[in-house]
Amino acid sequence: MRIYADNAATTKMSRAAIDAMLPCMEEQYGNPSSLYALGQRAKEILEKSREEVAAVIGASPREIIFTSGGSEADNQAIRSAAASGRKQGKTHIISTAFEHHAVLHTLEALEREGFTVTLLPVHENGVVRTEELVSAIRDDTCLVSVMYANNEIGTIQPIREIGAICRERGVLFHTDAVQAVGHIPVDVDRDNVDLLSASAHKFGGPKGIGFLYARKGVRLTSLIEGGAQERGKRAGTENVAAAAGMAAALTESCSQMAQTASRLIPLRDRIIEGLREIPHSVLNGDEQLRLPSNVNFCFEGIEGESLLLLLDDKGICASSGSACTSGSLDPSHVLLAIGRVHDVAHGSLRLTLGPDATAEEAEYIIRNVKEVVERLRGFSPVWRDLSSGKRPHIL
Amino acid sequence: MRIYADNAATTKMSRAAIDAMLPCMEEQYGNPSSLYALGQRAKEILEKSREEVAAVIGASPREIIFTSGGSEADNQAIRSAAASGRKQGKTHIISTAFEHHAVLHTLEALEREGFTVTLLPVHENGVVRTEELVSAIRDDTCLVSVMYANNEIGTIQPIREIGAICRERGVLFHTDAVQAVGHIPVDVDRDNVDLLSASAHKFGGPKGIGFLYARKGVRLTSLIEGGAQERGKRAGTENVAAAAGMAAALTESCSQMAQTASRLIPLRDRIIEGLREIPHSVLNGDEQLRLPSNVNFCFEGIEGESLLLLLDDKGICASSGSACTSGSLDPSHVLLAIGRVHDVAHGSLRLTLGPDATAEEAEYIIRNVKEVVERLRGFSPVWRDLSSGKRPHIL
Repeated sequence: MRIYADNAATTKMSRAAIDAMLPCMEEQYGNPSSLYALGQRAKEILEKSREEVAAVIGASPREIIFTSGGSEADNQAIRSAAASGRKQGKTHIISTAFEHHAVLHTLEALEREGFTVTLLPVHENGVVRTEELVSAIRDDTCLVSVMYANNEIGTIQPIREIGAICRERGVLFHTDAVQAVGHIPVDVDRDNVDLLSASAHKFGGPKGIGFLYARKGVRLTSLIEGGAQERGKRAGTENVAAAAGMAAALTESCSQMAQTASRLIPLRDRIIEGLREIPHSVLNGDEQLRLPSNVNFCFEGIEGESLLLLLDDKGICASSGSACTSGSLDPSHVLLAIGRVHDVAHGSLRLTLGPDATAEEAEYIIRNVKEVVERLRGFSPVWRDLSSGKRPHIL
Repeated sequence: MRIYADNAATTKMSRAAIDAMLPCMEEQYGNPSSLYALGQRAKEILEKSREEVAAVIGASPREIIFTSGGSEADNQAIRSAAASGRKQGKTHIISTAFEHHAVLHTLEALEREGFTVTLLPVHENGVVRTEELVSAIRDDTCLVSVMYANNEIGTIQPIREIGAICRERGVLFHTDAVQAVGHIPVDVDRDNVDLLSASAHKFGGPKGIGFLYARKGVRLTSLIEGGAQERGKRAGTENVAAAAGMAAALTESCSQMAQTASRLIPLRDRIIEGLREIPHSVLNGDEQLRLPSNVNFCFEGIEGESLLLLLDDKGICASSGSACTSGSLDPSHVLLAIGRVHDVAHGSLRLTLGPDATAEEAEYIIRNVKEVVERLRGFSPVWRDLSSGKRPHIL
């Protein structure tokens, strides 16, 4: 059996997305800025894609800027809000301790440029507490950036409430919705969001494209200067084929969202139940407030990397955390943020199901994770010390 | 007859590029940062693409950063050199008056941040004079940025000599080679280039990807912060399919470069000869030092936009200048830089041939441009004034 259970890292492209891209790659190759019919047809495809993307999050097409992906959208959103803030003498930003590095590293760069950043705690359940946000907002706060759903532990944040607080206090609100868009309902008006980032390859679209929603009236600054594309806010020839692929994938995933979620949630919960039978294990993140596809566990006494390699041998693609930090030996900042100690955080496993996951696959995953964890513990000197009582159990 | 003669705006994707992308879109969808085999296969495709791209410009793979396109690469190159310069107290940058806006607008932003910029003139032939570069270099010059070949008038700059001057004076040298790579021989060592930008969709690759060459030892700063992709210099999940498409297109266009050039140059020269028969017309840019595919003319007494629309009716896709500025009513800054006055610059036509252009197409272009120019002049009050002697001819 082969199971791709790393859909938070990237997804297989949907057939609808590929089918939308091919005509742009083969025939509709015009530059959308060109005056002749071939260029104008490309422009129509681009603008139709923008309308489709806007529609699913309740935005107007003029509020959507196509970017090269979620990271670029995050960078541009935060840089834009910071630039507006600085003009008003407001240089305080609030975010959370477990944001994606596209947010955290941008905030670190802004700190070097004179901004002050408050990172809200996310507690053991991996969820921001709105009362802590209320206390953190200052007169000089120019931006609150809280992710819609966490990329490692899948916890969904109280975005609507956060948005309402920000709106009331007159502070811009950005949400990195890379893991949410296409998976759970997102509506920029209901959620009071001013800036929102998304990435196509997380919902069956192509890699290399994403979008930034910026509410009408929110001033964007360009990360990439040059031509007047994207209403002067993002230079570079538009990636028409990828925009068409993103729109097709998003429309499809949103149209099937409710059915997908109602199928995945019982599978997710069955896997959680199964893996909890492994002694000295813990589910990371709130059990209810989590994405339908996400299971994330820590197992004491093992190394996540070995776990992934042995699972790969069994045909299961999984990860220990974010693919974006997989080169790093540091434990996940997300797991540290929810209070896991270094040793435990190293033994993490993230399983993120695809829309077509089955009950049979769930059982296969449970059986094999159990077997592999047991096998790895058999080799592990740490586990020997833990089970002999030389070292106290943490979990 | 349908002739796509706007290959400087964008190109039809080569079959080789599409064929290289499809397996990545359909099956090899892993995230290159993932540990399991599916991810590692994606990584292999990405790194093989990097090797192929590096090989054609004489670079090492570690010197290639994939970007979302030429504009991003230009921005990152210039921002990186400026940041290094500032650290050494060097805040003077030399460029030219007819660079792409991805360069010029970045330089304008740097001027607002305290940098001083000298734009070298490009004279009536559209070519930089190296003695003027020598005079312009100061002790606080941190960067020289001169495009390899101009995107509107196709003139090729003395890059090797400029590189040698910069090397001797210890100044970083960047070249926007978006119009050159894949079309004329580029070699970063021979040319003494430190930073080079390129874009895939200008040589038969997909839109939405390009690359930045940065010589070993040249410090890059990130435009997009986040994950550790591209050796920490460009965050965001790598666009594997597009990288594979770019590498395939570039390898193919470079392998056919000599034959393509030797077929295109006589066609280009025939079109130039033919269009010169139109009274009160002028070729823009040096006749010899120009890209094999580029013809650029000004015709007195007409508007470029009407010319393009009528040519489109005849099946000819052409442009008045850069597609990136087509929304603007201002005359081309490139044509102004070579001394064309506003009125004349408005009547411009850029024809850029594809690799498969034929002699028959060249004759069709000549015949139809002549006919359309004559027709437009028939309507034009400006032309009436010019031909009645009320207004003096400029051309």
